[in-house]
Formats: sequence, structure tokens, C-alpha cells
Amino acid sequence: MKRKSMDGAECPVARALDVIGDWWTPLIVRDAFDGMRRFGEFQRSLGISKGILAARLKALTEAGILQATPPDDGGAHQDYILTPKGRALFPVVVGLRQWGEAHCFGPGEAHSVLVEKASGRLVGPLKLEGASGKPLDASATEVRKVSSRE
Amino acid sequence: MKRKSMDGAECPVARALDVIGDWWTPLIVRDAFDGMRRFGEFQRSLGISKGILAARLKALTEAGILQATPPDDGGAHQDYILTPKGRALFPVVVGLRQWGEAHCFGPGEAHSVLVEKASGRLVGPLKLEGASGKPLDASATEVRKVSSRE
Repeated sequence: MKRKSMDGAECPVARALDVIGDWWTPLIVRDAFDGMRRFGEFQRSLGISKGILAARLKALTEAGILQATPPDDGGAHQDYILTPKGRALFPVVVGLRQWGEAHCFGPGEAHSVLVEKASGRLVGPLKLEGASGKPLDASATEVRKVSSRE
Repeated sequence: MKRKSMDGAECPVARALDVIGDWWTPLIVRDAFDGMRRFGEFQRSLGISKGILAARLKALTEAGILQATPPDDGGAHQDYILTPKGRALFPVVVGLRQWGEAHCFGPGEAHSVLVEKASGRLVGPLKLEGASGKPLDASATEVRKVSSRE
């Protein structure tokens, strides 16, 4: 299904989705956070065709989310590493993870967890705070439009 | 493009994406957070065909993200409101928004903003903290697998 491009949208959610492109992106970014760099590593992890993966890696490189670099070992292939713009997707990946943990597994069903490296303890939930440091849920916030309907 | 189903994945990111389904979901959920309830409101906001929107609303209702309810005005149509599971997607929508704000607009280019209702002031960035309350970035965390490759 071809999506309508939202690259002119005033809404940052729509604009972000337009750049991210499709559902493979959060999984590729997740794998890159987990230390994967090589085409073959991503392919084994995701189980997608080489053609689709090559197209996604190219698009993510063009979008400035990944950077193609020569590998440390001097080999002929390319490594793909996250740029600062790509690393800034960390809260999105964590948000998906925490929602998945809470709502997409049955009782007692096993899943991987995100831990603090230094302590090995589980990370806390993502927090949103107001200017004064007060925790905010959705009902305490609202979107202020720039002009008409975003 | 048909995605591989990840509903057996041990990774909560993959499982979440499988439930969310496609890129329309964060935009429909965003609109529901903004107070939209009616089919026509979503359609005007998203600019998609009635057929695609109807299919998405049905899938989101079946996934327990939206609930179809009789409207307050006693009309014959259905309203769609977020369930608690749907409202729990708030950090994902905010994460996409904040990444979009930071990385998908040119200097001085206008975009909508998320504010604290009570004060009208901008909300802060999503924060991730360790068990001791220490702020964590991606490099301070790691995924602990349940068994083999998630």
C-alpha cells in the first residue's frame, strides 16, 4: 500500500513517520542499537529478502539515520552504523518495547528485557514531564497547532 | 508490501509493531488523543480512502487499541475512542513527535507543539531512567535476551 507522503505536514508525528518510511525501520534501528553492523547480520535477524533489506538500508542512509562506513577489519563490504539522528530514535524504540512488554504478551510469556548495563537492573518507564518537572500523562497535554489543521 | 508476522517474536519491539500494524496507526491514535472520535473526522485529517480507514479502524478495534461506542448525541454512527491499551501508546506518539521536531524540519520551519495544558508551556523530552533514577541513553542500556536471538 502506497502511503500518502506527509513531508509537507506541520505535524512532527506525520513528518517523522514520513522519514522513517516503514515498519522495518524501527527493527533495523533496534538491531543497530544491539550492535549489528553488517548486511548479513540484519538479514538473519529480520528474515527479509536481500532486495528489501538493501532498499531499506539505502533509504535509511539517504535519510541520515544510518551511515555506511568501511568495516574495522578492512573488508570489502560496508558496515551500517547509526548517525546521531538515528541514535535519537532511541526513545521511539524504547516506547514501542515498553508498550509491547505491557500489552502484547500473555501472562508468564517470555520476552527480552532492557536493562541498565552498569547495574543489570530493568530500566524504568519512559517519563514525560512538564516545565516544572511534574509528570504528565496524555490528558495533561495538548497539541498547539501552528495554523489550521495539522 | 506484506510484512512477515512477528507475533511469535520474543522481542517486544517486534511484537508491538505486529499489533500496531501499519503507519496509519500512530496517526489515528494521535488524532484520537487530539479528541477526534468520528469516522469523518479521521478521514478529513488523514486524507485516506474510506475503505482503508474502515479497515484500519476495524483492525485497531479488534486489537483492543480503539473501542467502538455509541455517540454521546444518540446518533446512528459509531464513535471510536482509545482504550487504556490505546492510551498507553502515548509515549510512542510523543517519541515520534519529538524526533520529528528535532530532525525533520528545517531551521525556522513551523510545526505544531505539545504543551502542558495547565501552564501552556512546552513539555520536556521523554526521559529514560535506571533503577536508581539516573538518566540513561542508549549506550548505558542493553537488551537481555530470553533465549536465543530474539
